[in-house]
Amino acid sequence: MSDLKEYLSQRCHFVDAALNRLIPDADTRPATLHKAMRHSMFAGGKRLRPILCLAAAEACGGSIDDAIYNACAVECLHTYSLIHDDLPCMDDDDMRRGVPTCHKVYGEAMALLAGDALQALAFELVTRTPIAPLHPVAVMVLELARTAGSLHLVGGQVADLEGEGKKLPLEDLRFIHEGKTAALLTTSVRLGAMSANASEEQMQALHDFGMATGLAFQIIDDILDVTQTSEKLGKSAGKDVEAEKSTYPALMGLDASRAEAHRLTEAASRALDVFGDSAVRLRQLADYLLNRDY
Amino acid sequence: MSDLKEYLSQRCHFVDAALNRLIPDADTRPATLHKAMRHSMFAGGKRLRPILCLAAAEACGGSIDDAIYNACAVECLHTYSLIHDDLPCMDDDDMRRGVPTCHKVYGEAMALLAGDALQALAFELVTRTPIAPLHPVAVMVLELARTAGSLHLVGGQVADLEGEGKKLPLEDLRFIHEGKTAALLTTSVRLGAMSANASEEQMQALHDFGMATGLAFQIIDDILDVTQTSEKLGKSAGKDVEAEKSTYPALMGLDASRAEAHRLTEAASRALDVFGDSAVRLRQLADYLLNRDY
Repeated sequence: MSDLKEYLSQRCHFVDAALNRLIPDADTRPATLHKAMRHSMFAGGKRLRPILCLAAAEACGGSIDDAIYNACAVECLHTYSLIHDDLPCMDDDDMRRGVPTCHKVYGEAMALLAGDALQALAFELVTRTPIAPLHPVAVMVLELARTAGSLHLVGGQVADLEGEGKKLPLEDLRFIHEGKTAALLTTSVRLGAMSANASEEQMQALHDFGMATGLAFQIIDDILDVTQTSEKLGKSAGKDVEAEKSTYPALMGLDASRAEAHRLTEAASRALDVFGDSAVRLRQLADYLLNRDY
Repeated sequence: MSDLKEYLSQRCHFVDAALNRLIPDADTRPATLHKAMRHSMFAGGKRLRPILCLAAAEACGGSIDDAIYNACAVECLHTYSLIHDDLPCMDDDDMRRGVPTCHKVYGEAMALLAGDALQALAFELVTRTPIAPLHPVAVMVLELARTAGSLHLVGGQVADLEGEGKKLPLEDLRFIHEGKTAALLTTSVRLGAMSANASEEQMQALHDFGMATGLAFQIIDDILDVTQTSEKLGKSAGKDVEAEKSTYPALMGLDASRAEAHRLTEAASRALDVFGDSAVRLRQLADYLLNRDY
C-alpha cells in the first residue's frame, strides 16, 4: 500500500504539472477569470479521474504522455461541475477540498463563468490528443460531450435536485449515481484507453470497470457523508440528510451499502480479467476507492 | 429585400426543424431539464448565427445538409450563453426574445444546468458533421472550444462585467465586443466553411468578414439599446446606461458609432471579394444586420 501511496503522489504531481501548463496563466487577460479557474483547479483535488485515465492508457499498452490531454480534460470537466454544484442556487457550499469554494472567493458571477470556461477548456484539451488510428478525436469528443450533457452528468444533477425530500426507489437512485458519478469515471478510463488505441474488447471491459467502480465510489461517498466529519472530508458532512436526499445508506442501511460497494468492486476487478497483469494499477485504484475514509 | 425576408424565413424553419430533431424530446428523462433547454432554444431566436454558418458553407460550394450540425452547434452555444447571462448573479434579466427568461420559468438551478447541458450538446453536434478532408472534426471542435472559452466568449463576458461603472478606453471595449460577439459570429461562418471543405484563402476571408460583421453587429446592438424600446427589442432596453457600461455610443456618440458600423460592414463586404457571386447571401446578411431596428 505504501507503493500505491507513492504512485498516487507521483501521478498527482504529473497531472498537476500538466494542468499548470495547459490552463492559461493567472495574469492572462481577463486575469480574475483565470485566477478563479486556477483557484478551483489547484485546491487540493486528488486527481482520481485523471489518474484512472492514465492507468487505463497504460493497461492498454499506451503512454501517459499521449493520455495526459484527456486526463486533464476529465479533471477540467469534473472541476467545472463542482464549481457549479457549489453555487448558492445549487448545493450552496462554502467549503470544498478544505478551502473556500470559488464563489466565496470570487463571487457568484465569476464562479459561474469560471465553470463555463473550464467546460470549454475540457473539449479543447481533448483535441490535443495525438492521433490514435482506431479512435478519431471526434469519437473522443462525442464520448466526453455525451457524458457531460443532459443524459448523464447534468441529467444526474437534475434528478438529484428533484429527488430532494422524496424517498426514491433504488432504480432512480441508480440513475442519479450513474449520471453524476459513474459516467465520468467510465469516460475517464475509456478516454485513456482511446488515446492508447485500445481494442473494442478492452473498451468494453473498461466500460464495465468504470460503471461498477463509479457506483461503488458514490455509495462510499454516501456512507462517508453519514459517518465522517466535515474536517475529514474537506467539505460539509451530513449534507445528504439535511437536504433529505435518498442515498444507499438511507435506502438499505450502512451494512448492506458496504456489502454492495464490495460486490461492485469485485465485479470491477473481474471486468479487468482481459488485461491480465497490465491492469494491476486499475485494480489497486478500485480497492483504494472502496477502502478510503475521506 | 422581400426576397431576403423569404430566404431568412425559410432558413429559420430549416434550422428550427433540425434543432427540434437534435435536442432530446421534452419527455426524455430528466424531463424538466429538457423542457428548460427547449424553452430557451425555441423562444423566437432569429437564428442569425446558424443562418450565417449555412450561407458560408454555400459560398464555399458546400451543402446546407452537411453544415447543419455546426449551424445547430453555434446556436446551442449562443443560447447557453444567453441563459447564463440572464441569471440573477449576472445581468438579472426577466425577458429575452419577448418571453420570460429560463430562470424565471424553471428556477435558477435548472436554468444554470440547462445552459451547461446546451454547451455540452454544442460539442456533441460538431462531431456529427460529415467528414471534410481538409478540416478534421478535431479542428472544428478546437475552433468552437477556443471561441467558447476564457479568451473569447467567457473572457469577453468577464471583461464586460468588470468594466461596469468605468469609462473604458476604446481598445478595452473592442476586446469585450470581439470576445462577446465577433468571435462566435466568426466561428459560425468558419465552421460552415470547414464543413464545405473550404480553402485556406476562403477561411481567412471568412475570418475577416466575421470579425468586421461581428463588431458592426455589436455597435448596432449598443445603438439600439439607447434608441429602441424594450417592447421592440424583446428584452430590456436601456440596460447599458443603467449598468454604466461603456458602449460605442457612450464613447464616440451615436453618429460616429453609426459611421463606424457602416465602415465595418463595407470592410466585411470587401473581405468577400475572393468569393465573387457565391457570397451574395453573406453580403445581404451583413447589410441586413447593419440596417436592423431590433
